Amino acid sequence: MNIIDYKLMHNFVKNILVAVNVPERDADIVTDSLVDADLKGISSHGVMRLPIYIERIKAGSLKPKTSPTVEKDGRNILLLNGHNGLGQVLGVEAMQEAIKKAKEHSIGLVGVKNSHHFGAAAYFSELALESDMIGISLSNTTPLMPAIGGASPVVGNNPISFAVPTQNEIPISFDMACSVVAMGKILNAQKKGSDIPLGWGVDQRGNPTIKPQDVLNGGFISPVGGAKGFGLALMVDILSGVLLGGAYGAGVKSIYQDIQKPNSCGHMFIAINISDFIPINMFKEHVDQMIRAIKNSKKSEGITEIYMPGEIEYNYKEKNKINGLKIPKIIVNELNEIAGSLDVSAIDAC
Amino acid sequence: MNIIDYKLMHNFVKNILVAVNVPERDADIVTDSLVDADLKGISSHGVMRLPIYIERIKAGSLKPKTSPTVEKDGRNILLLNGHNGLGQVLGVEAMQEAIKKAKEHSIGLVGVKNSHHFGAAAYFSELALESDMIGISLSNTTPLMPAIGGASPVVGNNPISFAVPTQNEIPISFDMACSVVAMGKILNAQKKGSDIPLGWGVDQRGNPTIKPQDVLNGGFISPVGGAKGFGLALMVDILSGVLLGGAYGAGVKSIYQDIQKPNSCGHMFIAINISDFIPINMFKEHVDQMIRAIKNSKKSEGITEIYMPGEIEYNYKEKNKINGLKIPKIIVNELNEIAGSLDVSAIDAC
Repeated sequence: MNIIDYKLMHNFVKNILVAVNVPERDADIVTDSLVDADLKGISSHGVMRLPIYIERIKAGSLKPKTSPTVEKDGRNILLLNGHNGLGQVLGVEAMQEAIKKAKEHSIGLVGVKNSHHFGAAAYFSELALESDMIGISLSNTTPLMPAIGGASPVVGNNPISFAVPTQNEIPISFDMACSVVAMGKILNAQKKGSDIPLGWGVDQRGNPTIKPQDVLNGGFISPVGGAKGFGLALMVDILSGVLLGGAYGAGVKSIYQDIQKPNSCGHMFIAINISDFIPINMFKEHVDQMIRAIKNSKKSEGITEIYMPGEIEYNYKEKNKINGLKIPKIIVNELNEIAGSLDVSAIDAC
Repeated sequence: MNIIDYKLMHNFVKNILVAVNVPERDADIVTDSLVDADLKGISSHGVMRLPIYIERIKAGSLKPKTSPTVEKDGRNILLLNGHNGLGQVLGVEAMQEAIKKAKEHSIGLVGVKNSHHFGAAAYFSELALESDMIGISLSNTTPLMPAIGGASPVVGNNPISFAVPTQNEIPISFDMACSVVAMGKILNAQKKGSDIPLGWGVDQRGNPTIKPQDVLNGGFISPVGGAKGFGLALMVDILSGVLLGGAYGAGVKSIYQDIQKPNSCGHMFIAINISDFIPINMFKEHVDQMIRAIKNSKKSEGITEIYMPGEIEYNYKEKNKINGLKIPKIIVNELNEIAGSLDVSAIDAC
């Protein structure tokens, strides 16, 4: 592992993006999303994703300049066509629009079609927090999971995320993939050269495996809770794909295969203006009470603390801002190689 | 098992409700929801729930006459106070309001606080189908599940349901509890006198058990997928409890304990007007394509058909309308006893 200051990493990643013609403001957004994930300890959605972004920008399937167009604009809804721009840039713009609509009309629903991998879904849900709103973000991905009884991937492990503001407690921030684990965790295991636990996925013939490459090469990951995870993934594919007139099912391509083909994923962002229901202070106090009741509840043997969704990540972020990011040497080397090819200064790692 | 014609069962259940002063129209709604669940083979949410409804009406904690008041009425949102009326009656009214709002403003969000057990969540989501909308319904329940690392129940196994209209295929109708199984399935096993599979729940000290009574008497059921099921349950508790200024966490009471205390659960109903995003025919065609792609996908060994969410229930309903409902003798006897005490004619069962 290399230890790298997150601000140095930010500048480094941003310079790489700028070097492939991403406008500075957009490069800042994409970088912030990736570094935020690494700060939170979610390395599967961190800077390890940069190489494929750069490859796709070079291949032309991901546009460095993100210029969404509006396809529908209602009081509460907005439908954006992302034209294969950067997912994070589209996501931030879309969530900001959802917040704006919710401010005026209680709820905002903004869909983005023809987008690209947007990193961690929680990054966008959390944008609603400073406006005292509940934020929800969903995205479809390329099919990775079979149906119940199926032996070929038909639906993505589509993330579901929500964020809830609090008074004094750490805000709730939940982010799940509809598979037992996220594909990024399997990619990460492969990068690290480690095995995966049994149950995370199966090979191309449907046999359980502990080798990440078996899952990555034609195999698939399993839906969480069987029919429950499958149904939730389907709901996300409908809300962030079919409903928007965008790609769904096999229409969403893997970002790691056929890099000439656009990813074409879609996202749905929802903001709910809490104070249109009940006074915001009452809401926050009740959420705080809920959190304390849960954290103070009876613990299982050997457990000293109960963590709320997003709490571990929040604590990691505070700590890693000071202590630096732990990035596998193999990823730092890969990033430095890319930087070198673009005349961007390498990052020092210790 | 007794075999009973569903129309006979409908009249029978309705007569019982009317006998405890539920207005005829409301009795029709509650009965339709319960019989619908039995028709679909979801007996855990069927007429087996009637006895506790009647007990609670007699105890005064459930009002036979449902008279919601409006606490907030925005363009897109509505907040109803159910004043401990019947959950199904409140649910149907709320979903109809959500549909009305979505028709005018693309999306409708209707919350109900101070409600009572509303049966199967899918019943309400499916109401959106005939208006060519996506329907979503959520409800919080009394705490049944521990947090991750916890050993006491802090959150309900709160249901999440959605329904999606189709062109020629069977509509998608998804309904999950955030636990590995619904509490109703454990109640049902108890009624039948059968064991439950290991993993469904634990006893009051947190030990795994196969006895339904261990779970029902102070034990608890486990969240599906660990932190994922727990986080989803929390989201539902926030959206259908905290956000509405209603009960949440331990504030929602079990319908089976302390029957003098109101249940005080809350619901959230969402309707999304598809045609404000894309033409409805295009949407339905794409959903049909999605369904066919999934149903025609490669199958695992020994599997002859892949079923979509709601498909098995849809097929059961068609079949059971003709063949009759299969109701355990013990439940028929219980219902007939209640009927007798209210001077309602018993139901004939064969």
